[in-house]
Amino acid sequence: MSLQSIKYQRGSLEILDQLLLPVVSKYLTVRGVEDGWKVINKMQVRGAPAIAIVGCLSLAVEIYPEEFGNKKSLRQEIEGKLNYLVSARPTAVNMKISADELITLANELTKDDNVTVEDMKQRFLNATEAMLEKDIADNRAIGANGAKAILEHVAETASAAAAGPVRVLTHCNTGSLATAGYGTALGVVRHLSELGKLEHVYCTETRPYNQGARLTAYELVHEKLPATLVLDSMVAALLRVKNVAAVVVGADRVAANGDTANKIGTYQIAVVAKHHGVPFYVAAPLTSIDLQIPSGDHIIIEVRPDREMTHVGEHRIAAPGINCWNPAFDVTPASLVTGIITEHGVFKPSALKAEITKLLNL
Amino acid sequence: MSLQSIKYQRGSLEILDQLLLPVVSKYLTVRGVEDGWKVINKMQVRGAPAIAIVGCLSLAVEIYPEEFGNKKSLRQEIEGKLNYLVSARPTAVNMKISADELITLANELTKDDNVTVEDMKQRFLNATEAMLEKDIADNRAIGANGAKAILEHVAETASAAAAGPVRVLTHCNTGSLATAGYGTALGVVRHLSELGKLEHVYCTETRPYNQGARLTAYELVHEKLPATLVLDSMVAALLRVKNVAAVVVGADRVAANGDTANKIGTYQIAVVAKHHGVPFYVAAPLTSIDLQIPSGDHIIIEVRPDREMTHVGEHRIAAPGINCWNPAFDVTPASLVTGIITEHGVFKPSALKAEITKLLNL
Repeated sequence: MSLQSIKYQRGSLEILDQLLLPVVSKYLTVRGVEDGWKVINKMQVRGAPAIAIVGCLSLAVEIYPEEFGNKKSLRQEIEGKLNYLVSARPTAVNMKISADELITLANELTKDDNVTVEDMKQRFLNATEAMLEKDIADNRAIGANGAKAILEHVAETASAAAAGPVRVLTHCNTGSLATAGYGTALGVVRHLSELGKLEHVYCTETRPYNQGARLTAYELVHEKLPATLVLDSMVAALLRVKNVAAVVVGADRVAANGDTANKIGTYQIAVVAKHHGVPFYVAAPLTSIDLQIPSGDHIIIEVRPDREMTHVGEHRIAAPGINCWNPAFDVTPASLVTGIITEHGVFKPSALKAEITKLLNL
Repeated sequence: MSLQSIKYQRGSLEILDQLLLPVVSKYLTVRGVEDGWKVINKMQVRGAPAIAIVGCLSLAVEIYPEEFGNKKSLRQEIEGKLNYLVSARPTAVNMKISADELITLANELTKDDNVTVEDMKQRFLNATEAMLEKDIADNRAIGANGAKAILEHVAETASAAAAGPVRVLTHCNTGSLATAGYGTALGVVRHLSELGKLEHVYCTETRPYNQGARLTAYELVHEKLPATLVLDSMVAALLRVKNVAAVVVGADRVAANGDTANKIGTYQIAVVAKHHGVPFYVAAPLTSIDLQIPSGDHIIIEVRPDREMTHVGEHRIAAPGINCWNPAFDVTPASLVTGIITEHGVFKPSALKAEITKLLNL
């Protein structure tokens, strides 16, 4: 089974401490909102969906054993503590969105005279737990849709003899450690493996934070998938000699035309994939597709501190005094994207806007 | 003036200790062959030409103050100590070639009755010093030829207004720290700067040994050139937005057809340069062009230990248990190479064999 970065049962929450990875694998017990705030603030849990889910579940485990005299006191508890959780990492917008949704729910339940205080608590617990389940279910659907698309593409283009298990390349970390579990691009890799169709997965180091070498490699080793780490500079050499069937990456944001903002280095891999005739897929849940943005030109790229490039921990690896350019993301133009893998299917960039609009209007 | 990694005057030799770079800049005095053997063996001096030159100069400073009773004892000293120096790094072929040349010279001078023992010593010192001078002179010629080619290309393709100083990108370290001084690809950058035509130079980190971040960045900071470090994954994003006029890299070996083996990542940069319409130059002295090899298919790529990728110093940066693929070099096909910059001019890959054959037959 997939690596579990979040272990939850009603009344009990544990998270894998990502600060200690990849060297030490240790779960932390989150007993309530205080613990939840700390693990988010200290970045022991990372990744936008994971932060929101851990925050909300930390409240769920806190209120589970409590008894509330009336709905108003429960509502106050929910609102106050969710707002407190948002303050742990104010820029993590998913936590804010989830908090607002749950506060709206609490307000509605408070007003509804048919709902008892115990009903309200149960419905609140159900709502937080549904977030965890939905994220994993969406990722599983992305995995299945992506694996199918890759295998169909191989079947169309390769001889029958060559259409066995495939080699794929992925970038950064999009797995259990970045989501509630299973993962997006890494979910596609997991699903290929479940189908018996994964010959090998290559993961890039992903400088400067080394999410590929630290986190993706950790997940692949944990699940004993056939995997090899390569440096970011090796993708062209790899595609030239290793018969890679597809590249699959995640997305921070996909514009309406299919332009994709993702971890720095993604655009370069897309250029190299195109040069070698290797299909390039973006795996992204509907929540990452922003139809309000017509193209990637409208996405502002965060430029991060030099120190991320010049040091590994306390160890200086670059000459003192050198300037650095450290964009956190780049934009891959839609023309280099073969397909966008969502939980509702795989879409060509040119069809993305119409297809998503249709889905949202259902 | 260029960073001096080798400081030599007759009777005196100092080298910049590369093991302490980029954090500490310290020159080591090399008093003779014992010291020469140690700095080569401990890799305080690196780079094939630099090793050979430091080895031979360490013998020159040793014999300079000595008096020899006869030519035979001088010849024995030369032969014995050069063979000893070769043993410091047996795989560094340049040291062996230089030792053989100097031993041949010593034998010839010993046999020539018109040469006194003092003449012989002077001619030996001259020969070792000429190696240093020739390497630097060749690099300066490469720098001038490369700068001219880049500027002419810009003048042909850009509007007059745009034909001012240029931005260039380089990979790995090809500067004073890899040669006797000045450098090959970095010599081109230095020459652009001397002409007042260098707007900016971008250097790549060059994983896994970070020669770009450690050594090239060190040289650029030392000489106050306008420079920025980028990660290996950022080249495509950089070429897309920063109006880079040319990429210039070094070569470990160039085949007769222009296929070029160089530090891992070079091929990827060449693919990315082609995609963005940026000319891609290889700077290499004639000694790196091997007409015996018809194409890059005949170049065997060294695959190096995983630990170079998984650790920085003693610090583990990759998940324990992950497999690695760590080729030290890749081969850039001639079709991606705009020109090969030598000390005798800049040649298109298709013309390389004929031009070099002509030069060698002069």
